[in-house]
Amino acid sequence: MKYCHHCAGPITHHIPPGDDKPRFCCLQCDVVFYQNPNNVVGTLPVHGDQVLLCNRAIEPRYGKWTLPAGFMENGETTLQGAIRETAEEAGAVVLPEDCSLYTLFNLPYINQVYLFFRTQLRSLDFHPGEESLEVALFREEEIPWNELAFPVVRVTLEQYFADRRSNRYPVRMFDLNYSVNKETAERQHSTVLISISD
Amino acid sequence: MKYCHHCAGPITHHIPPGDDKPRFCCLQCDVVFYQNPNNVVGTLPVHGDQVLLCNRAIEPRYGKWTLPAGFMENGETTLQGAIRETAEEAGAVVLPEDCSLYTLFNLPYINQVYLFFRTQLRSLDFHPGEESLEVALFREEEIPWNELAFPVVRVTLEQYFADRRSNRYPVRMFDLNYSVNKETAERQHSTVLISISD
Repeated sequence: MKYCHHCAGPITHHIPPGDDKPRFCCLQCDVVFYQNPNNVVGTLPVHGDQVLLCNRAIEPRYGKWTLPAGFMENGETTLQGAIRETAEEAGAVVLPEDCSLYTLFNLPYINQVYLFFRTQLRSLDFHPGEESLEVALFREEEIPWNELAFPVVRVTLEQYFADRRSNRYPVRMFDLNYSVNKETAERQHSTVLISISD
Repeated sequence: MKYCHHCAGPITHHIPPGDDKPRFCCLQCDVVFYQNPNNVVGTLPVHGDQVLLCNRAIEPRYGKWTLPAGFMENGETTLQGAIRETAEEAGAVVLPEDCSLYTLFNLPYINQVYLFFRTQLRSLDFHPGEESLEVALFREEEIPWNELAFPVVRVTLEQYFADRRSNRYPVRMFDLNYSVNKETAERQHSTVLISISD
């Protein structure tokens, strides 16, 4: 970030008066450009004893399986965004009254918050959108655990199959942390359960 | 938004190739500047049969009572942000293990999502921060209902006192809508319960 959106003046990174964190500030017109986390919103679509997954047609994680999800847009609610992404990626229509908030993931290392809504599919009318190669339903024993795109998808699915045994679905919040093993250069994700509604 | 952050080239508002929404795009270096909703995170601090409120020392709603809350920052989790705001605005230390997600509000008309965590105060050690005139504990019958700063605060408090009767605190998600009455010019907020965890 080098130039001001408003006046094209030079931007520097410093702590503005009255603040305690460095921000991108315009030296010419005094505007501060705040940067804040983004929400990624999606659904866990259920049909009988099966769940719907999308095979990704885009990077990152091309060819891996995921739940339909994407960036929340201005002017929409978290649930409207989740329903929109489900239509765009899986060609599936889900209704707001069939949805309830289920998992929330904090990913502070990439400034994201993921929110998944559990929902019921009323029909088998779905098809891959532009960002999916394939959309399919899976029973628990059919889930391609080693071919899932993201840790948030794995944890949401694991939690769902565990909760299904008691038919209770409290909202759970997780922190996801990321590190690279210095010796093997392997990427490692760890997930910690932070809060559960009661 | 008139000039590019990267090259100071001219920015226009149009639908970029492969997208379906107008974005701010640089004509010179082809960068797209996405705009997404922000999260506001806070706590509902409880001490016995009392809850903590802060009297606002800043606009908007100077002099009105609110729960400690503020914009989530990059590099932190929703809960870390809520705990930070509670320390900054109310001088109160709350511990992550005493917190659980409680209410989520969608405010699409201002591109915000509010998240409140219910938490227990372990001590009476609190004091107003720079953005508060006063911090105080209130029993249910003492809440200054007509002097609350925001609808999200009123709804969270109403929900808490209702839930306290059953000692069950499921996560509830609400949509908040806003309109201005054309005849009286009065601002009107309406809140709709969208989802409840079970």
